[in-house]
Amino acid sequence: MIPNDTSTSLIMIFGATGDLAKRKLYPSLYHLYKKGKLAEKFAVIGTARRAWTHEQFRENIKESIITFVGTNDQIDDFASHFYYQPHDVTDSNSYIQLKKLAEELDTKYSLQGNRIFYLAMAPEFFGTIADHLKSDGLTETIGFKRLVIEKPFGHDLESAESLNAQIRQSFAEEEIYRIDHYLGKAMVQNIEVIRFANAFFEPLWNNRYISNIQITSSEKLGVEERARYYEKSGALRDMVQNHMLQMVALLAMEPPIRLTTEEIRSEKVKVFRALRPIEGDEVEKYFVRGQYDKGTIDNNEVVGYRDEHNVVPQSNTETFVAGKLMIDNFRWAGVPFYIRTGKRLTTKSTKIVIQFKNIPMNLYNKNEQLSPNLLVIHIQPEEGITLHVNAKKSGRNIQTKPVKLNFSNEADNGINTPEAYEKLLYDCLHGDATNFTHWDEVALSWRFVDKISEVWENKQSSFPNYKAGSMGPFEADKLLQQDNFSWWDVTDLDVENC
Amino acid sequence: MIPNDTSTSLIMIFGATGDLAKRKLYPSLYHLYKKGKLAEKFAVIGTARRAWTHEQFRENIKESIITFVGTNDQIDDFASHFYYQPHDVTDSNSYIQLKKLAEELDTKYSLQGNRIFYLAMAPEFFGTIADHLKSDGLTETIGFKRLVIEKPFGHDLESAESLNAQIRQSFAEEEIYRIDHYLGKAMVQNIEVIRFANAFFEPLWNNRYISNIQITSSEKLGVEERARYYEKSGALRDMVQNHMLQMVALLAMEPPIRLTTEEIRSEKVKVFRALRPIEGDEVEKYFVRGQYDKGTIDNNEVVGYRDEHNVVPQSNTETFVAGKLMIDNFRWAGVPFYIRTGKRLTTKSTKIVIQFKNIPMNLYNKNEQLSPNLLVIHIQPEEGITLHVNAKKSGRNIQTKPVKLNFSNEADNGINTPEAYEKLLYDCLHGDATNFTHWDEVALSWRFVDKISEVWENKQSSFPNYKAGSMGPFEADKLLQQDNFSWWDVTDLDVENC
Repeated sequence: MIPNDTSTSLIMIFGATGDLAKRKLYPSLYHLYKKGKLAEKFAVIGTARRAWTHEQFRENIKESIITFVGTNDQIDDFASHFYYQPHDVTDSNSYIQLKKLAEELDTKYSLQGNRIFYLAMAPEFFGTIADHLKSDGLTETIGFKRLVIEKPFGHDLESAESLNAQIRQSFAEEEIYRIDHYLGKAMVQNIEVIRFANAFFEPLWNNRYISNIQITSSEKLGVEERARYYEKSGALRDMVQNHMLQMVALLAMEPPIRLTTEEIRSEKVKVFRALRPIEGDEVEKYFVRGQYDKGTIDNNEVVGYRDEHNVVPQSNTETFVAGKLMIDNFRWAGVPFYIRTGKRLTTKSTKIVIQFKNIPMNLYNKNEQLSPNLLVIHIQPEEGITLHVNAKKSGRNIQTKPVKLNFSNEADNGINTPEAYEKLLYDCLHGDATNFTHWDEVALSWRFVDKISEVWENKQSSFPNYKAGSMGPFEADKLLQQDNFSWWDVTDLDVENC
Repeated sequence: MIPNDTSTSLIMIFGATGDLAKRKLYPSLYHLYKKGKLAEKFAVIGTARRAWTHEQFRENIKESIITFVGTNDQIDDFASHFYYQPHDVTDSNSYIQLKKLAEELDTKYSLQGNRIFYLAMAPEFFGTIADHLKSDGLTETIGFKRLVIEKPFGHDLESAESLNAQIRQSFAEEEIYRIDHYLGKAMVQNIEVIRFANAFFEPLWNNRYISNIQITSSEKLGVEERARYYEKSGALRDMVQNHMLQMVALLAMEPPIRLTTEEIRSEKVKVFRALRPIEGDEVEKYFVRGQYDKGTIDNNEVVGYRDEHNVVPQSNTETFVAGKLMIDNFRWAGVPFYIRTGKRLTTKSTKIVIQFKNIPMNLYNKNEQLSPNLLVIHIQPEEGITLHVNAKKSGRNIQTKPVKLNFSNEADNGINTPEAYEKLLYDCLHGDATNFTHWDEVALSWRFVDKISEVWENKQSSFPNYKAGSMGPFEADKLLQQDNFSWWDVTDLDVENC
């Protein structure tokens, strides 16, 4: 089904005064509005604790657009669709008020009873809100009802299961849109297309031709204002359980029968089921954790993690994870998927490097290896695809040099591709859950990750073990060295833009 | 064997006042000289009919460098190595004089008796000169002797055989360097490296993954001053017998055991032996000939071929050839190699397009075909590699768009790659005959081409049949349409440079 380009709905945002709403949701809605991809008659209700008026809220919306989009074009008309309701998430009266406003707006804007509930707030309230939405009658509507939930979805398998059980009282699985904003990124969405729309790649996409796959998602930032959450989470739960494993699934999945939500999710789930569980003594062979010490980033001295605001002095929280994943199926047996992610690293970059096996026989460079062929998928901040191939050096001797075939998404479009949130909001408005995570995926990835955290929580770390501004602890390099591989330097792989 | 970067030799150029010498050979020698790739003690003797002095010749050399290289740096020292000898190619006395001068220079420059005889003149004298070089003692030397011969090597198999028999009286096969200047082009030399130094391409390089290969070598120029030769040759002999078939051989050959001259030539010969002979009634199914009518090129009216200077009014000479070649071996059975070449076409361009088969199942664009993957090798004027792949369009819908992964040789080096002649001269100085054509290749390609010319010569053409400025006759399009293919528009395939 290819949906209409516009879709009518009331959008209720819980946590409307928060950072995510201001930085991502309002700008995304504005972009959709400007592109004519919001129905003419849409309405947004923002809720939060503060006692704002509609007008105050609208001023805030406009400020967010001016700050993060950089324009005030049609801003008054856009903001006029926004309404505010002060809200206490634990108080039924709040929900009853909200219901009244929702019904008014439904009539005023002819919204056909369609409702999207977007939970952009602290996860401890997800369950409570879902309960109230049902018990106070907000989910009783003649249109569709959809629940959008930000991460984290639970803290481990057990808490995720109990959260899921709770929200499933109010919403069916197909009404739940679990956000993983990586799945909204243009080049993450491109993984499938690269694989399944090109005769060129699929024949090589297996253990006969691929030697290993490396996924790096590095940040320069430290924990910033998020220590209260991060101290309980760490990089494994914050990044690996969701984003990193989702990228692995998209890279490793079998071609689906067709491109429906169900078929794609079912293939992704099969990858998680084939993922070799790493537990007990195996954990230290397959996984490395790290925590940043003080160091230098962009010529600025920065403090170590343990000296950050709201971090305990002996914190055992990992700010870096590297791991080796094995997918035990016919396609991938023997091909390691290496992942690494962390804070306070050398560069901000998310890249996937697919390294091909060496050619069967080296006719060139008798005494040195030929550079292996690489396919690099640049996820962020630059977007593009690079293929590293060997060509002939100019001059007489038969010497090869690695050259890059580049495609840069930015260079091509002239403008940045739509923000992940814009895509995901659009998908949700149209009932397309393909780029949201199904409960089965959440459960399997928690199961995988829990076995690792269990070992780490019961064993003292030797933190801090990497300098801010480096690419993580030495052990992360050793992880690949033992397989005779090494991390490709992500700073060296950039698309050469003009 | 990796030779020294410099090599000592006396270079004798027959046809030293001609166009090729001025435009290509002197500039190439100058480049080698500037790069330190000519031995310090090199010497060049130019010969031709004119009664020039050494000084007049040197002035001419300098003029050529200034005109075609655009510098006069170290030009006096460079020119001082050049000597001139007025010469009558049929007169023994001339050769005896030449021998004397050669011996003097040998002593003066310590050239170790090494001699390269470069025949840059009308082909009718090749045999005569080779005879005299032996009979008048020039080939009697303690160093190496090498004969470099420009095209055409014969007019058909019979004349080529008799020329070959004649020169083999004076030179052994391994002393004969038959120039095909396409083999000196950077990106033609890259075909092998792309194929054999990349794990990425070789597994796909066969009839399971490739649907067809298209080689276009188009010129904007008409016959210019060459009608006297061209009237007797035509595009088939002038371009197909040598350049086009050589590119086919490099694309189709099996990986050689090692990269020696013998092994590579032996694999190329095997391609020619597997080439399906096209004869009799088959010719019009596989080959199309054309001759340009008047038309418009770059907004200038140009005359038809039959109105060109020195062309007979009813000329039957083809200025365009398109053909379908089949290589009947395991790797290529069923994959057509389409070639086309001609004068007065839309653009000056030599490109190879490798078109891959469609993916087994189209998950995207239900109602339209996905763009096929293409690997484009840009031979001239631009040099580079482009891979056409499908990526996801930005925006919500699952739509693909073809994108190009580009590598541009120029962009990479900042400067143009060495001219073909520079490379080939360098190779010859070092005794590397890999990028010259072996007699076996010449013989097999004449055998193939002769069967086609035989049919064409005995059947009146319907010339002129294409307009100057077009891409050739309609029948060239039909040739591919009958296989459900079509020519890729070479003007549309360019590397997007910055």
